[in-house]
Amino acid sequence: MNRQIRLAARPVGEVKPENWDITSEPVGEPGPGHFLGRTRVVSLDPAMRGWLDDRPSYLPPVALGEVMRAGSVIEVIASNHPEYQPGDHVVGTFGVQEYVISDGRGAMKIDTSLAPPSTYLGALGMPGMTAYFGLLDVGALRDGETVVVSGAAGAVGTIVGQIAKVKGCRVIGIAGGPAKCALLTDELGFDAAIDYRAEDVRKALRRHAPDGIDVYFDNVGGEILDAALTRLAMHARVVVCGAISQYNNATPVKGPSNYLSLLVNRARMEGIVVFDYAKRYPQAGQDIAAWIGTGQLKVKEHVVSGTVDDFPETLQMLFRGENVGKLVLELA
Amino acid sequence: MNRQIRLAARPVGEVKPENWDITSEPVGEPGPGHFLGRTRVVSLDPAMRGWLDDRPSYLPPVALGEVMRAGSVIEVIASNHPEYQPGDHVVGTFGVQEYVISDGRGAMKIDTSLAPPSTYLGALGMPGMTAYFGLLDVGALRDGETVVVSGAAGAVGTIVGQIAKVKGCRVIGIAGGPAKCALLTDELGFDAAIDYRAEDVRKALRRHAPDGIDVYFDNVGGEILDAALTRLAMHARVVVCGAISQYNNATPVKGPSNYLSLLVNRARMEGIVVFDYAKRYPQAGQDIAAWIGTGQLKVKEHVVSGTVDDFPETLQMLFRGENVGKLVLELA
Repeated sequence: MNRQIRLAARPVGEVKPENWDITSEPVGEPGPGHFLGRTRVVSLDPAMRGWLDDRPSYLPPVALGEVMRAGSVIEVIASNHPEYQPGDHVVGTFGVQEYVISDGRGAMKIDTSLAPPSTYLGALGMPGMTAYFGLLDVGALRDGETVVVSGAAGAVGTIVGQIAKVKGCRVIGIAGGPAKCALLTDELGFDAAIDYRAEDVRKALRRHAPDGIDVYFDNVGGEILDAALTRLAMHARVVVCGAISQYNNATPVKGPSNYLSLLVNRARMEGIVVFDYAKRYPQAGQDIAAWIGTGQLKVKEHVVSGTVDDFPETLQMLFRGENVGKLVLELA
Repeated sequence: MNRQIRLAARPVGEVKPENWDITSEPVGEPGPGHFLGRTRVVSLDPAMRGWLDDRPSYLPPVALGEVMRAGSVIEVIASNHPEYQPGDHVVGTFGVQEYVISDGRGAMKIDTSLAPPSTYLGALGMPGMTAYFGLLDVGALRDGETVVVSGAAGAVGTIVGQIAKVKGCRVIGIAGGPAKCALLTDELGFDAAIDYRAEDVRKALRRHAPDGIDVYFDNVGGEILDAALTRLAMHARVVVCGAISQYNNATPVKGPSNYLSLLVNRARMEGIVVFDYAKRYPQAGQDIAAWIGTGQLKVKEHVVSGTVDDFPETLQMLFRGENVGKLVLELA
């Protein structure tokens, strides 16, 4: 049987157990040109919260009753597809389920001798690509600039900061709690870390970025975005990647009160959606893999072992800030 | 005697009569390399409200007791400066006062046979330059796009819309009241006008810009900015020029709740400060003068005749939305 997580009801505010259905259906047979895979690792992403709302966005909402959308790595166990053989590992948007039948569209074979499957959901997957193109293209980073990243201990933030260090920048990470902050400075090479739970972010930014912020990479929105806006350097770039502090709001999103700093500082704020850069993923993947190889980029993954039944609870960890690095659910 | 308007106390919220002092001092003699001028026309600009607050911005605040900063056109009446002769008209940031002594720095002689003095404070002055560079450089306007401008019947808005029409764009103006809206469509060639006092702006934008907004030029902020953000086309540009709806707030600025539309639509929001383009003013001035000459750009000016004593009351007209086009105070 194929166990699956389906959207039962749209959440208002926080996602609750009753928003999900756990269902089972017989595992199908792959037809001509298709393969059957067994899920090895499921990605958990803050963006998932947005996919649950019935509103237009960069992807259509997950439909009620549909298997929850998720990136995952599967292992092929049967194939009628000439390019996929049993034992191959494949990454794609296969959903939260134990078994997957695919014709290979939107999927990509991965080399698990180079990196473990989970890394293809993290540093070598969407979060890595998002960090790379968000920082270098949308952020138009120049060597030696001052970079601030929020959600700095998360899947995207850890990579943003390390790429910025590769580029010779001064990097300040904003994260919640002393353990995450210590990780950033002691292990990942950030120049400074700000614990937003313990410090006044605005004052800390003034101290750590006295000449202002050239690139602010925002994963969180809310009060932290507003604090960063007060400290922009002239011609700064604010990369809008996410707003995890606002995703569970039942009330309207808190808009950035200090957005007129964009005017005063001739700065810009611009969104990144990683899919736009699909043609250039290979280039980014090569760069990131090279930096991993030289030790300039350390991969941080938070692996929860369990079954698809653990998906709802594991997803909550993102919104409670309990993960460090890329959060994945590894299926036994 | 030289009558002057000075800042007596910083306003909280709306500017009130008690925020100003009206003073008189003897008219000075121009020293070597200086000239003496008599003020003919004073510019009134929404940005003035920001200059009264004691906070860092793109210009230092007007100091308490200082003559109020303002652009104006003066006529030279005595000169020890080789390049300025009595009878010359000169535009500069000369302040709200009847007489001015200047060494010519930051000033520019104007040709009143080409356009009246007031136009050098409007279409051929800062508002014209702001519209031109905001729309074409920051907005990166491309021919045939859909442009929405708020504060559309104001000094900058009237020019933004007409330049966009010159560029073959579809132009929708947002303004307050039926008279301003009729001006936009009947006289200035806008394709549509939205009366924000009478209509639901979001719905009206859906009707008038069914394929979304490519460039939104914002002079007002607040609810109208938020409405425009919901209707952005992919890769839209939001030009942040001003936020007149927020300038008199005693409470924090209302941040744009819908800013995540920048992410969904890979759009950007960027500030314009016209001084950055000073080297290119001549080019913009030539273009605008040419469009005025061909009748493609109609100059709208709202001339109040009076004395410097009328400055405080005239300034209020901007915040009450009582002006149509560029507001100036012409001294008798």
